[in-house]
Amino acid sequence: MLPVEDARARIIAALAPTAAETVALPDGAGRVLARGVVARLTQPPADVSAMDGYALRAADGTEGATLAVIGSSPAGRPFGGTVGAGQAVRIFTGGFIPTGADTILLQEDATADGDAVRVNETVNPGRHIRRRGLDFSEGAEVLPAGRRLTARDIGLAAASNNPWLTVHRKPRIGILATGDEIALPGDPIPAGGIVSSNAHALAALIRASGGDPVVLPIAPDDTDIIAGVAGTAYAFDMLVTTGGASVGEHDLIQKALGAEGFELGFWKIAMRPGKPLIWGRLGRTPVLGLPGNPVSAMVCAVLFLIPAIERMSGLPGAAPRMRRVLTSVPLAENDHRADYQRASVSFDKEGRMLVTPAPVQDSSMLATLARADALVLRAPHAHALPAYAEVEAIILPELGV
Amino acid sequence: MLPVEDARARIIAALAPTAAETVALPDGAGRVLARGVVARLTQPPADVSAMDGYALRAADGTEGATLAVIGSSPAGRPFGGTVGAGQAVRIFTGGFIPTGADTILLQEDATADGDAVRVNETVNPGRHIRRRGLDFSEGAEVLPAGRRLTARDIGLAAASNNPWLTVHRKPRIGILATGDEIALPGDPIPAGGIVSSNAHALAALIRASGGDPVVLPIAPDDTDIIAGVAGTAYAFDMLVTTGGASVGEHDLIQKALGAEGFELGFWKIAMRPGKPLIWGRLGRTPVLGLPGNPVSAMVCAVLFLIPAIERMSGLPGAAPRMRRVLTSVPLAENDHRADYQRASVSFDKEGRMLVTPAPVQDSSMLATLARADALVLRAPHAHALPAYAEVEAIILPELGV
Repeated sequence: MLPVEDARARIIAALAPTAAETVALPDGAGRVLARGVVARLTQPPADVSAMDGYALRAADGTEGATLAVIGSSPAGRPFGGTVGAGQAVRIFTGGFIPTGADTILLQEDATADGDAVRVNETVNPGRHIRRRGLDFSEGAEVLPAGRRLTARDIGLAAASNNPWLTVHRKPRIGILATGDEIALPGDPIPAGGIVSSNAHALAALIRASGGDPVVLPIAPDDTDIIAGVAGTAYAFDMLVTTGGASVGEHDLIQKALGAEGFELGFWKIAMRPGKPLIWGRLGRTPVLGLPGNPVSAMVCAVLFLIPAIERMSGLPGAAPRMRRVLTSVPLAENDHRADYQRASVSFDKEGRMLVTPAPVQDSSMLATLARADALVLRAPHAHALPAYAEVEAIILPELGV
Repeated sequence: MLPVEDARARIIAALAPTAAETVALPDGAGRVLARGVVARLTQPPADVSAMDGYALRAADGTEGATLAVIGSSPAGRPFGGTVGAGQAVRIFTGGFIPTGADTILLQEDATADGDAVRVNETVNPGRHIRRRGLDFSEGAEVLPAGRRLTARDIGLAAASNNPWLTVHRKPRIGILATGDEIALPGDPIPAGGIVSSNAHALAALIRASGGDPVVLPIAPDDTDIIAGVAGTAYAFDMLVTTGGASVGEHDLIQKALGAEGFELGFWKIAMRPGKPLIWGRLGRTPVLGLPGNPVSAMVCAVLFLIPAIERMSGLPGAAPRMRRVLTSVPLAENDHRADYQRASVSFDKEGRMLVTPAPVQDSSMLATLARADALVLRAPHAHALPAYAEVEAIILPELGV
């Protein structure tokens, strides 16, 4: 059986970032830069005041002096003249420092008196001035390629005068659920059948991870129909199948996709839940075959599909971040398979995160999975642990899933 | 000056969740349920096998026995007959337990031999059977009102046969940036002007927080134009303005909006950056006036706007989650204002999160804000701290911003 890390490494190694596209600035949030963002101007564009007050010559700013106020320099409306000896210009935060002035007298250290101002506290030369280019300079790269853009980054790209961004395309991922026994919610359910939950749960996970999901019609266990749908996979950056991955079933997917030139990899992963995984390539399109069991499908998606989406989006595609948290209950020793136990999250009085694995870890239970915000990792051959011991866990809401 | 918590409490108290709408299941991810999701079927719909093997009568399952295999029960294709004495039915995970059978002989404990199977290990009655309704029962509420739906919840709503969901509308938030000196990226910049960054940074923040942003055209410092734009605010669940909130400027917003019936609240918040905040109501539409300074605007948006969006989305609207982390450098004592220091995040060898406040906390610096993934809280009158002391911080990427 293949260790989880090895399976993920092989998937990541086989994937490449999508090609670049140009998007308007507001559409860039959450996308990954394919090209760095370069400042198209210098910010601030000139020396500006950091405070409300008066711009003057430092030599004039001694306590008790009275200066003639010859104009004002609010943000966006620079004063056109020059500040001479014995003169001052009213200035506001962001206002350009007028020619001749070299320091700021704070508003609270001054008394306005008609067209004059009295200095109540001697100034320091150069104080309260934001120098030209303090934030960034024209030509400087303000955001590097490979960065996933936050709301703050969108602000920085805007301020540096970039109406367009060059980002990786969202990976477009086809989702194919197979099985005679499954029906869409609200549709007639075949005798002995169940309602399909994987395709739309995976679509939500893919969207939350930066991908663009396409839910394909459910395919019955019929090689011709599966082959027909798979034949359209060239339109996707990845095809994800769900169902048909268990030992007894994978022949069906293999047979159906084989006719379309599928190069099959079939792995038993040393993990619980979700042991079987199909990995291969249909033409140029990578294919990830997840188990049909909904809990196994979601856990495998967290461990393998999210890193794959990140890789295709232009990020490295790392393992999901593990957090060190405390288990609220004793944990048994583990066997040779990595165990991802569904667990609820709570906090103790000191604000420390506690995880409590669900008492029944049956991999069919979607209600338990929905309530379980953490996957507690029990590494292969992990020793038994007492309550309040430290464990590693994946916090699912932190991944947006 | 108003403490941050009091200002937030007043904002939250003045807001109500948006009305409900019906959305298709796939559009429910990230939305907040206005009505609980009720299971429309029982899952599993009958007793099913948890493993691959043979269904039989426990009394027949003694080591060494040989049973006649009279049919099979894969998932989705129940066996129509009855299992009698000395008989077994081939069964697969998820397959219905046939009438007459009451336990499962595991595949690995059996030897198939033509139409017969040999029992290699005596069975336990009732083992490896998932009972009807183990996951959920028809009529049970599987997801409560007020829950923000994860990808896992979408799977559970699907499995419980719900093609539609009743959720709160996304709060629609108009964003009005004001100022003679600002221009959109790529547009001509007035002399002494700068490029507007707030509106699109706020739009990204609003979208990431579950809101639906509408970026209004930039309004110059002209009361008639501002009033004209504000007159359309009835179409929004909230109007957010940026700029015109400093002490010298707020008269403009007040004068412009006053003509439209604006009930003004103007607060000086005991915080840094972002002291001034406008809060009021224009007809029935709440108005939140953020500072024009981009760093202040973003910090105020994290502290006040995100909880407001959550409240309007149907959540309680709590303070942003604070995490206990370690400061990598000594911190000075604080004055009477809560200080939210922009800080970078790193991890030490033990995987603990370290925060390093930017050496210059100038609130004009967008490049610093983009690099700062944490806001380190220095409470009013906080004592000086040595390096590696515990501090509270808001981790911005955890908020999706």
